Amino acid sequence: MKQAIILFAHGSRDPQWRRPMESVADRLTRLAPQALVRCAYLELTEPDLPAAAADLVRLGAGEVTIVPMFLGAGRHVREDLPALVEDLRVRHPAVRWMLQPPVGESERLLDLLAELACPTVRPRVTDSPP
Amino acid sequence: MKQAIILFAHGSRDPQWRRPMESVADRLTRLAPQALVRCAYLELTEPDLPAAAADLVRLGAGEVTIVPMFLGAGRHVREDLPALVEDLRVRHPAVRWMLQPPVGESERLLDLLAELACPTVRPRVTDSPP
Repeated sequence: MKQAIILFAHGSRDPQWRRPMESVADRLTRLAPQALVRCAYLELTEPDLPAAAADLVRLGAGEVTIVPMFLGAGRHVREDLPALVEDLRVRHPAVRWMLQPPVGESERLLDLLAELACPTVRPRVTDSPP
Repeated sequence: MKQAIILFAHGSRDPQWRRPMESVADRLTRLAPQALVRCAYLELTEPDLPAAAADLVRLGAGEVTIVPMFLGAGRHVREDLPALVEDLRVRHPAVRWMLQPPVGESERLLDLLAELACPTVRPRVTDSPP
């Protein structure tokens, strides 16, 4: 049974917006070469979740983990996404759909964000003009 | 001269949305106890950036670093935020305003996101109903 992972993010009109998501997908493909990896978006960016999911089912995925790439968990993560996943369970009942907590709930992520914002480890800044 | 840090995020109608940002602010206050730390939001959540900045200036901040808590960098980060920071430089010329790159440009953050999404380190999931 093939395993798959969907990185689920908000989406944006700006084509550059999705780059970090695609970069995480590339890294994940190297970390888990046995898994099928896709990005999917709630709105404004293609593909949406049903399209990415259908693609994975067509490729033989039997177990799909959906990872919400959201720092803050508002209505999108707590209501819209579970409803979308329920639709997937109805539409593709032979597949096991698993929904991870949003990345913003990870203590390790919160620790790293604090470290990145800390003045002593600040990597580079755009300073005031002279 | 007092140093200050503003964690700048999008904002949401959902009051739970801001919790990770506030959690990062708490961690940062422990990491950098000498710095004044505030959260500020582009829209829908209070305070906005001008209000948080004015508060810090009133408290004596002489150098303020703004950290964009955005994974994807679209128009909000590449256009709206630099314009807001320019306004701060005009309004408070005695203060040094520094704008960090968005957290989504951090290689360490992208590595960690891939690791969090990787099936072998998956901490907990909401599984399909039985």
